[in-house]
Amino acid sequence: MGRATDRRSVLRIDLASDRADRNAVRRPDTLAAEEPLEIRVGRAGQGPRRPLAVTMRTPGDELDLAIGFLLTEGLISSAKDVRTAQLCAGDDAPNTYNVVDVVLGDDVPEPETDPARGFYTTSSCGVCGKASIEAVRTRSPYDVTTDPVRVPATTLATLPDALRAAQRGFARTGGLHAAGLFTADGELLAAREDVGRHNAVDKLVGWAARQDRLPLAGHVLMVSGRASFELTQKSWMAGIPVLAAVSAPSTLAVDLAAEAGMTLVGFLRGQTMNVYAGAERISG
Amino acid sequence: MGRATDRRSVLRIDLASDRADRNAVRRPDTLAAEEPLEIRVGRAGQGPRRPLAVTMRTPGDELDLAIGFLLTEGLISSAKDVRTAQLCAGDDAPNTYNVVDVVLGDDVPEPETDPARGFYTTSSCGVCGKASIEAVRTRSPYDVTTDPVRVPATTLATLPDALRAAQRGFARTGGLHAAGLFTADGELLAAREDVGRHNAVDKLVGWAARQDRLPLAGHVLMVSGRASFELTQKSWMAGIPVLAAVSAPSTLAVDLAAEAGMTLVGFLRGQTMNVYAGAERISG
Repeated sequence: MGRATDRRSVLRIDLASDRADRNAVRRPDTLAAEEPLEIRVGRAGQGPRRPLAVTMRTPGDELDLAIGFLLTEGLISSAKDVRTAQLCAGDDAPNTYNVVDVVLGDDVPEPETDPARGFYTTSSCGVCGKASIEAVRTRSPYDVTTDPVRVPATTLATLPDALRAAQRGFARTGGLHAAGLFTADGELLAAREDVGRHNAVDKLVGWAARQDRLPLAGHVLMVSGRASFELTQKSWMAGIPVLAAVSAPSTLAVDLAAEAGMTLVGFLRGQTMNVYAGAERISG
Repeated sequence: MGRATDRRSVLRIDLASDRADRNAVRRPDTLAAEEPLEIRVGRAGQGPRRPLAVTMRTPGDELDLAIGFLLTEGLISSAKDVRTAQLCAGDDAPNTYNVVDVVLGDDVPEPETDPARGFYTTSSCGVCGKASIEAVRTRSPYDVTTDPVRVPATTLATLPDALRAAQRGFARTGGLHAAGLFTADGELLAAREDVGRHNAVDKLVGWAARQDRLPLAGHVLMVSGRASFELTQKSWMAGIPVLAAVSAPSTLAVDLAAEAGMTLVGFLRGQTMNVYAGAERISG
């Protein structure tokens, strides 16, 4: 199996050191592991599975990642749409943990093309943020507008520390994004780390789906970095009503959250935060 | 034209404020703009261009981004391979700045499929980091191994401040990645910002290509975040010998840099830095 971190030799330079022999020191350093994961899909009894997408990710939780990806891209609507998912059983290939083989149920439409990039592609001239939002709306199976959950601002203020405490890989490498799934009471249900922030979210959503927890009504998703359109989309696709980020959101993330009836919190740091959409869910 | 930043209304919460009426204040906030950009390619006189990829990016420098993307993905080898590149001239579409229409020269092989994802896809079971590195090696037109440039560590130490000073968008939003192209003397030639760090690099590379500056031998690329496999690949494809990042590199970024004969510097902050590959180019 692949590992989430690995070591490399590094030359550490410290120009401020007053000891000349400490200016440049060679030592081992722990890095976040990055490897490609190929997701293949197909149907039972219909020959070899077809490559659908390759994502650069940190090894671990491959089946969760694959199922989460298919869900948040709208290619399946529940884990039940997947008949089997397994690490590729290639016989002489050394890195079979880098390929996940997914067999879809017979009634699931087979994806026609690369969904990750093709998703937003339209045939009209004039692809725009509005068209992207519309595309997500069409695909999301969940209406989070009516989710009645309320989250105290004091609870939100505890989430960054709780997530950070779960980031074992980040503590060792400084190179991993994290995503944590919380209850409205601030209880951490699960956290995942990855070099790709979208992968961290997909791993969480896939985990929840395989436990039959979707939609994730009443939950809070906290991410360690920024809130992009893509992360907001993935939250909506999993039915999560509240997305909180340590850093800044983009315009399209805010617009999508507002359109979806989601709550979007950014710059959640210590005692301060910015609420960009759905402020009615923040109490206190 | 699209704008690089835009304003949204935000509820700013400060639980530590000792004035109750200042705990939650609604105010305008400046955000990093995020919009899709569709890149279409085709040949003169052969009907409508075909959508190749969609990237979520910050508006601005669309032609540089498209050409940089085609270059760093190995689909063209110089700006001369592009006969024309223009914002889509759709007549009734409102957002034509979100589509770039590229006409390739007659002798340029037309991309067969989505290059961004398909690039790493192999037909064998066992896709791995090594295969990804091999794929880049096959495509890079430049050998940076022999680049004789030397960069003093004291010069590298000045780059983060120089890049930060050029990050006007980040200063206003906190939500934009940046990439800066420097000479070995530490002179900033150009800087670009984007919600996607890969886009910031593609905008720089496209700008350089259109000025006929490729390969960027003897130059240093500095990025505001982490160094991933993808950013290292893009640097190599542009012939850049030195990549420096404010934050951590991944294992595959280090392995690719070592394979390419590039110099990779991480955690470049103030007077300290880690050299992960090609330390012979760092002097002093």
